[in-house]
Amino acid sequence: MNSLCELDKKELTNRLKRIEGQVRGIQRMIDEEKYCVDILNQINAIQGGLKKVSLKIFDKHVHGCVQRAVKNEQGDEIIDELMNVVEKFTK
Amino acid sequence: MNSLCELDKKELTNRLKRIEGQVRGIQRMIDEEKYCVDILNQINAIQGGLKKVSLKIFDKHVHGCVQRAVKNEQGDEIIDELMNVVEKFTK
Amino acid sequence: MNSLCELDKKELTNRLKRIEGQVRGIQRMIDEEKYCVDILNQINAIQGGLKKVSLKIFDKHVHGCVQRAVKNEQGDEIIDELMNVVEKFTK
Amino acid sequence: MNSLCELDKKELTNRLKRIEGQVRGIQRMIDEEKYCVDILNQINAIQGGLKKVSLKIFDKHVHGCVQRAVKNEQGDEIIDELMNVVEKFTK
Repeated sequence: MNSLCELDKKELTNRLKRIEGQVRGIQRMIDEEKYCVDILNQINAIQGGLKKVSLKIFDKHVHGCVQRAVKNEQGDEIIDELMNVVEKFTK
Repeated sequence: MNSLCELDKKELTNRLKRIEGQVRGIQRMIDEEKYCVDILNQINAIQGGLKKVSLKIFDKHVHGCVQRAVKNEQGDEIIDELMNVVEKFTK
Repeated sequence: MNSLCELDKKELTNRLKRIEGQVRGIQRMIDEEKYCVDILNQINAIQGGLKKVSLKIFDKHVHGCVQRAVKNEQGDEIIDELMNVVEKFTK
Repeated sequence: MNSLCELDKKELTNRLKRIEGQVRGIQRMIDEEKYCVDILNQINAIQGGLKKVSLKIFDKHVHGCVQRAVKNEQGDEIIDELMNVVEKFTK
């Protein structure tokens, strides 16, 4: 169970399909010996796309799962878990 | 008002004093014409120190302020504000 | 033209195929309503994979294209271009 | 020895003095129990400042030290060292 509604799922799936296509595009660029800098810029675009996906999921998780847990007096556990994620994603 | 107790404040202040000293150290390294790579590695260490400070404050904020707000039915506003911060700190 | 040899191309293509599979895996996780935190951890793994790909290409680019350009007295242009990439990838 | 001219040194020292002041500002904010989110935003500003400093030094290093080394047939060693730095600073 997560906190994504049908609309979120549709939006995220569309984004991820685009990202999947971009990853395949990188494989093609490598195969066709495109210029390194162009490949790197394209990878940067993928990372930007993934960041958007993760921020969306993060947002829904905190508004949904975390709020529910806090109201059920189980906030501290879910927040510790959340901080683990934040640590990984923090620059 | 924030969610830092006296112990947190002491720990964070100590960390920040160290970071302040490291920033002064970089100025000295530049003045003494130290090798670029050594300066860059030192800046990286400072960034690591700042990340630890921000994760600590973030953790206390979510466990404290955010939980309190959720219990007072003001969760959505404080979580939107939180997501703004997360976006800035996310790689 | 880039600085990737056949061996690099093979290694990078393998990595990217794995990443492509992982991106499809995220779509499945969303479809199957897996837990947000598990999805986020999986996205973090993809970002780690992409970082490895970009560091490899970056490394080959500097050892190859950049060195060649410097020896042909065209170093400054290619380094300005490189710095543009570094800025995007820097946390 | 590094690749920073007097003008660079002056600019970087000014930036670092400002950053040092901002780090002291964070200590004050903690002491005065300012709101967590305001402290986090201020830390984010410091990290932005440090990124600018490191990009400047990186740029000068590649245009200067690295180009010189490449012309003296010592490019590969200095580029390996550079990649070590890039890896640390890459998100």
